[in-house]
Amino acid sequence: MSLCDHSPAYIRALSAYQPGKPITQLSRELGIPVDNIIKLASNENPLGMSPKARAAVERELGTLERYPDDFELKSALAERHGLPRECIVLGNGSNDVLDLLARVFLAPGTSAVFSQHAFAVYPLASRSAGAELIAVPARDFGHDLDAMLAAIRPDTRVVWIANPNNPTGTFLAADELVGFLEKVPANVAVVIDEAYNDYLPPAERIDSTAWLARFPNLVVCRTFSKIYGLAGLRIGYGLADAGVADLMNRVRQPFNCNNLALAAAVAALGDDEFLAKSYAVNVAGIEQISAGLTRLGRRFIPAHGNFITFHVGDAAAVNERLLRQGVIVRPIAGYGMPEWLRVTIGLERDNARFLEALAQALS
Amino acid sequence: MSLCDHSPAYIRALSAYQPGKPITQLSRELGIPVDNIIKLASNENPLGMSPKARAAVERELGTLERYPDDFELKSALAERHGLPRECIVLGNGSNDVLDLLARVFLAPGTSAVFSQHAFAVYPLASRSAGAELIAVPARDFGHDLDAMLAAIRPDTRVVWIANPNNPTGTFLAADELVGFLEKVPANVAVVIDEAYNDYLPPAERIDSTAWLARFPNLVVCRTFSKIYGLAGLRIGYGLADAGVADLMNRVRQPFNCNNLALAAAVAALGDDEFLAKSYAVNVAGIEQISAGLTRLGRRFIPAHGNFITFHVGDAAAVNERLLRQGVIVRPIAGYGMPEWLRVTIGLERDNARFLEALAQALS
Repeated sequence: MSLCDHSPAYIRALSAYQPGKPITQLSRELGIPVDNIIKLASNENPLGMSPKARAAVERELGTLERYPDDFELKSALAERHGLPRECIVLGNGSNDVLDLLARVFLAPGTSAVFSQHAFAVYPLASRSAGAELIAVPARDFGHDLDAMLAAIRPDTRVVWIANPNNPTGTFLAADELVGFLEKVPANVAVVIDEAYNDYLPPAERIDSTAWLARFPNLVVCRTFSKIYGLAGLRIGYGLADAGVADLMNRVRQPFNCNNLALAAAVAALGDDEFLAKSYAVNVAGIEQISAGLTRLGRRFIPAHGNFITFHVGDAAAVNERLLRQGVIVRPIAGYGMPEWLRVTIGLERDNARFLEALAQALS
Repeated sequence: MSLCDHSPAYIRALSAYQPGKPITQLSRELGIPVDNIIKLASNENPLGMSPKARAAVERELGTLERYPDDFELKSALAERHGLPRECIVLGNGSNDVLDLLARVFLAPGTSAVFSQHAFAVYPLASRSAGAELIAVPARDFGHDLDAMLAAIRPDTRVVWIANPNNPTGTFLAADELVGFLEKVPANVAVVIDEAYNDYLPPAERIDSTAWLARFPNLVVCRTFSKIYGLAGLRIGYGLADAGVADLMNRVRQPFNCNNLALAAAVAALGDDEFLAKSYAVNVAGIEQISAGLTRLGRRFIPAHGNFITFHVGDAAAVNERLLRQGVIVRPIAGYGMPEWLRVTIGLERDNARFLEALAQALS
């Protein structure tokens, strides 16, 4: 047996995550100039990053030879959420937080429950830890909490919930989640991934962190990659019971978050103007693209994030025709939706270009 | 049983890594102004970062809302090492690469061999994966390869080697390592961590990547955190057989390296002038501190990295007296060396200040 054959079977069975195609890659592949390409494939903020965060990054450029110190961001998050520092786990993106949760609670002999059409990192992180996957059929493309509850077995240690969900954009209201948390056994971690929470109308935004005191098995994940516009810097966090956070911090790589991400996140947290503008651009874009899809006779799932998932039939072929026009969206066949595409809400002109290219691709 | 009690025993038994004390933390703790503190505790480059890397970071500041694309750095490293891209694994610091190796090859029921006084991440990553640790007594503070070979058991999957070693600064020559590789079973991964390789005199620097074709169980780890001065950006890499690299890349978080680290690393690789200057400053500093320690009657281990480990007796007390003078070095009791301290080579004036403070602390 060779070295690789000795790797655990669950590692050898993994498939790597398929990211959205970078603009530079499409340019290399099809010879389209970079400036003629629009990417609406990775739910990035079309306004870029917060100007305050950018200023913070520039102030920090003289410290890059120093290992990071996460004191200030932890302090800012503790204040923001009204929680002790001991309840915070910083991640190199929220992907890192999800991975830490899998490593702390999952292992061969355990299982993890997640929903059909939910974010790909849940099954990937669970499998990496050797857990068995329990995929629960979706209801209207979203989480069927009753079925997920029924799917929990004695060996289940983690339930993954994306709210809003990526890539379908569905949303669970606060009372549904509380009802679920009340019924889940206390020895099963319920992870609510709120990467897209800030795109909800203010009245619908959930402050699930307020539930932590009542449900010590709850873990809430947030990211700076979406509305905060810091995807390229890699920073996210988890909020959890201090005991859970302590376990996660022991497995966490000590310098998992870089200096610039830490500084940018502190500044971004305080840039309400940028958040309000990003939210408004997204609301307008959802309206624009929804109207356009309706004109084109396309079904789509009502959006609660910064993207819309729509039906086209032969999505691989339509995607190829979009790519040849320099428009990158996201095929989601890997999510069991081979007839659908996901488009990220962009600026008005990019949304319009996407709709034109789609009309062309469908004709 | 509560949720945390269900976490695997090997996770609950972990202790978190103890990093060097940040300047800001000492300032908060003892009320010493930040400008009066010098930190020679984390083997950081006293010259900062490469100016070319800084320029690359500044050029990249407009892309931070985009998820990272590692194409260019992988291309640059493939060219630099004369290896196909498939042999490269990028890490969020080389710590990330070490962690990936542990996850791919270690699990409960396996064991990992490492040397007494070797880098703390080896036991930490091995334990996180549930492996049993086999710590081999050091010889003259360095790796005893014969004893490590003899310690390999049928269930051993990884041997960790730091060359030069941190925190002792010892060094293994190329022929010793080749002799070791020839005898290790092919189904045991030999990880050579070369974080400090660039501080060796050019004639002693090992190009162990040339051995990869002959030993497909070899993995070489490199970092940009030391002589390249990018510790705060987090970037390192592993070079391995394509099959091994493929497994590691499946477990790797898809966006584990941030945009700025990727861009900085490409630029830093080409900045020979900065590397030469950093090397020269280090050689002069080793001479300066070695002479100073000798004058103070202190034993020290001959340095092969950018730090010197020296004997003081009651290291905790001496360290405390150094801290009160605003000088941060690294206690290494956690490495089984409670009578020793490790000092990073700094600029001439900081080395001098350290030596003065040490004289005071010892008197």
